[in-house]
Amino acid sequence: MLQEAWLRRLGLLLWLCSWLGPVQGGRVLVMPVDGSHWLSMKLLVDELAQRGHEILLLVPETSILIKGSELYHTETFSVPYSRSDLSASVEWMREGVFRRNPPLTDIMINVERLMNFTSMQVIGCEALLYNNTLMEKLKKAEFELLLTDPFLPCGTIIATALSLPTIYFLRGMPCGLDLLAAQCPSPPSYVPRFASGNTDQMDFMQRVKNFIMTGVELQLCRTMYSRFDELASRYLERDVTYRELIGYGAIWLLRYDFTFEFPRPVMPNMAFIGGINCGKSSALTRDVEEFVEGSGEHGIVVFTLGSLVASMPPEDAAVFFEAFGKIPQRVLWRYTGPVPDHVPENVKLMKWLPQNDLLGHPKARAFITHGGTHGIYEGICHGVPMVMLPLFGDQNDNVHRISIRGVGIALSIFDITSEILVSALDKVINDSSYKENMVKLSRVHNDRPIEPLDLAVYWTEFVMRHKGAEHLRPAAHELNWLQYHSLDVIGFLLCVMVIVIITVLKCCSLCLRKCCRKSPKKKED
Amino acid sequence: MLQEAWLRRLGLLLWLCSWLGPVQGGRVLVMPVDGSHWLSMKLLVDELAQRGHEILLLVPETSILIKGSELYHTETFSVPYSRSDLSASVEWMREGVFRRNPPLTDIMINVERLMNFTSMQVIGCEALLYNNTLMEKLKKAEFELLLTDPFLPCGTIIATALSLPTIYFLRGMPCGLDLLAAQCPSPPSYVPRFASGNTDQMDFMQRVKNFIMTGVELQLCRTMYSRFDELASRYLERDVTYRELIGYGAIWLLRYDFTFEFPRPVMPNMAFIGGINCGKSSALTRDVEEFVEGSGEHGIVVFTLGSLVASMPPEDAAVFFEAFGKIPQRVLWRYTGPVPDHVPENVKLMKWLPQNDLLGHPKARAFITHGGTHGIYEGICHGVPMVMLPLFGDQNDNVHRISIRGVGIALSIFDITSEILVSALDKVINDSSYKENMVKLSRVHNDRPIEPLDLAVYWTEFVMRHKGAEHLRPAAHELNWLQYHSLDVIGFLLCVMVIVIITVLKCCSLCLRKCCRKSPKKKED
Repeated sequence: MLQEAWLRRLGLLLWLCSWLGPVQGGRVLVMPVDGSHWLSMKLLVDELAQRGHEILLLVPETSILIKGSELYHTETFSVPYSRSDLSASVEWMREGVFRRNPPLTDIMINVERLMNFTSMQVIGCEALLYNNTLMEKLKKAEFELLLTDPFLPCGTIIATALSLPTIYFLRGMPCGLDLLAAQCPSPPSYVPRFASGNTDQMDFMQRVKNFIMTGVELQLCRTMYSRFDELASRYLERDVTYRELIGYGAIWLLRYDFTFEFPRPVMPNMAFIGGINCGKSSALTRDVEEFVEGSGEHGIVVFTLGSLVASMPPEDAAVFFEAFGKIPQRVLWRYTGPVPDHVPENVKLMKWLPQNDLLGHPKARAFITHGGTHGIYEGICHGVPMVMLPLFGDQNDNVHRISIRGVGIALSIFDITSEILVSALDKVINDSSYKENMVKLSRVHNDRPIEPLDLAVYWTEFVMRHKGAEHLRPAAHELNWLQYHSLDVIGFLLCVMVIVIITVLKCCSLCLRKCCRKSPKKKED
Repeated sequence: MLQEAWLRRLGLLLWLCSWLGPVQGGRVLVMPVDGSHWLSMKLLVDELAQRGHEILLLVPETSILIKGSELYHTETFSVPYSRSDLSASVEWMREGVFRRNPPLTDIMINVERLMNFTSMQVIGCEALLYNNTLMEKLKKAEFELLLTDPFLPCGTIIATALSLPTIYFLRGMPCGLDLLAAQCPSPPSYVPRFASGNTDQMDFMQRVKNFIMTGVELQLCRTMYSRFDELASRYLERDVTYRELIGYGAIWLLRYDFTFEFPRPVMPNMAFIGGINCGKSSALTRDVEEFVEGSGEHGIVVFTLGSLVASMPPEDAAVFFEAFGKIPQRVLWRYTGPVPDHVPENVKLMKWLPQNDLLGHPKARAFITHGGTHGIYEGICHGVPMVMLPLFGDQNDNVHRISIRGVGIALSIFDITSEILVSALDKVINDSSYKENMVKLSRVHNDRPIEPLDLAVYWTEFVMRHKGAEHLRPAAHELNWLQYHSLDVIGFLLCVMVIVIITVLKCCSLCLRKCCRKSPKKKED
């Protein structure tokens, strides 16, 4: 009898486990965004493939960093622009970052760059959506899930057209569209807005600025995504906005960690995978390892300006070469620009840096970075203080967050001289407070109940197992702006109050009048 | 050379691991709340003790359910009321639940019961705080952490006095004080208020009701916690409110799961451990197992009204005995009241039910419950449909959430007849939709990246490792109500707008006047 009960219990356990284990043979459609965005999403895609999921990657023929792999299938689609068009656009952006702009125009230039880049992507997306052969093939493939970076809209439109649950993989979207779409409250009183230069601790005038920028952001969102809205509405044959569409996403995998971001309200369908890119370190190649080891007690400085900016104008490069000649550390620099005649002996120029592996090396003393989130998380993860030179996009904000935590120094690429750079490097390497603060931050960052990659895999498989995450979708999606903020209710209650007050006043005046009328009569009597 | 590098890396890894492993010999002060609150907190306390932490439990001498254990030390403190005073208070509450109250007075009665209970606890807390010998002993013990249920304030006041980081373990606090204190947004447009009878999907009038109840709740909070505020201010010798004090908590371990709760904004320092109480199942005792097995294909019904209500007036009990006589299932009922002469053969009365183990048994067909969160989570966890009889507190709300998910039927204890009960049991057992919905809900609930108990242990040890969780504390704590909602900024901007408009109008009128003056002159010329 007892044995039977145990067998039943074992059966129940195995049945439960069958729901909790990996989904065998899940079919996942992936729509990535090129550039550094792809570098971290690739980690999840690789892991999913290794866990037995069948992956199809949709890649435009002009792709720069997204390459095929034997782990998954790649479907290349043609776009009405060439790789050189795209390269020209990237080059225009790349050159621009070393040119100083008049004050206050930075945001507009950033927006212009972004709109220029996304416009091209909208054209590419249109070519994909109206590629009937390919779309028919995708429909027939019966995917269970779409994984995409909502920075570009094509993935979400395809997910809607194919009725697929969606997983979003991102750090954030321009003008906070991700937070708006996820119905996530962002009080402007302590959640700093993009490019505002604010932290979460603001004085009155900073809060005024932040509040105004909230309004500007909303307007910007409308302008920036209007072409996406138009494309989505036309393709789906109903009046939709991109914001509405991404609101249907099942899970938001956000490359967020509160050692770097400011604490703020979040939603239950957000999972935080900040630092996902520094999970796995590989050994350095022999020549790099030898160069690093040869640095002795002084150690090394790692220098890169991100996946898009590998070179710089010679006059800027000269400043760096001069500065590096003056420091005792060895420098590994990702640089593909023209090489001057006398490169200091302690400098090794490389076309591509194993950034994470170098920062994880015990000899790493400082990290010169443009302040992209990948680099910053790798710096925090390995506890390496930073000297930062923000170039564009969110980098100014990122760099600001690192500076105020006392783990790095922000410099301006326009004002840099070899003296300023040497002094900053000297400070982050030899003023022990930077290293101490960074080690503390690093310990907190690395202390988590589950590794970011495992968490990302878990939620992806969860959505496949349950065909979405409907239980995490807030009812706020059913409300319009007025309703969400209870403004209609407040209006109604004010009306009721006014009516009550008027009625009471009328009654009182009526009573008073009656009393007044009576008294003269009495007098007359 | 390479070997050396590997050794270094191994060293670094071990160093990192030393921060991630359990804190050896952590000293934890625990201030629990009696009753069912203790039953789930005990799971965490036991686990912490088993992981090598030194635990001291502070327990009033009148405690009902909190018993000593060989796993941890217990410090009993005297209170100026006797166990019989406390029992009388509980008995008053217990009797009251079977008496029908006039409509709309339910909330007030709930509040009265709560205030009566907490008033006694404030007196008890005062006795503890002013017990100088004990407080001196606690100070000297140099704890690293305080674990408490903020439902009662004593823990938080002690944590403040001893400057200890605090972990809160709770399902929620009366009038949403936990959410207010944690600076967690709760838009009344879709977050239903306590006892409002609303869900997250409300029509206009329900939203009006919810909005008004938000105001009522705020006022209620002030009244309900005024004695706590007074005690805290007096003891800490500064003007504080209890809400302010609990705002300093490091981590909120919330017995929340969104298969049961409505999705809503949350904060980064909240960890969700709903269902922590159904992690470990034990085998049934021989006689219980035999009774359960003997139920055959019809299976069993589990019936309990919670840890406080083990009996009921005979006329109410008669209804249940009659109903159970008419159903084919066997019933296990936690009942300590007077036993009538003819108890149906299929009914087993017990003083204490192994509720979780019974619900986990494959023969469990239905669960008759008062709708406490422990029972509800156990029901969801094991996928057993419910018939619910809410008695007091949050039970009405809980039961409502289960009903609308189609996994249970809510009945009123006042209107119950044997026919109604038999019909409800028949429905949840034989209408397959209840079981199917419950199995779906159960699958989602049980599918999580980390077990609730492990998550609770992780965050508790995290706070010990890092002496708090400062990086998760939102800056909203530094703002007052006006600032948080940007009302001062809006006021300022409105003023600026008015001034600008007036200035522009003045300028225009000045210009106009000048023009008008000139023209007559011209005419005169």
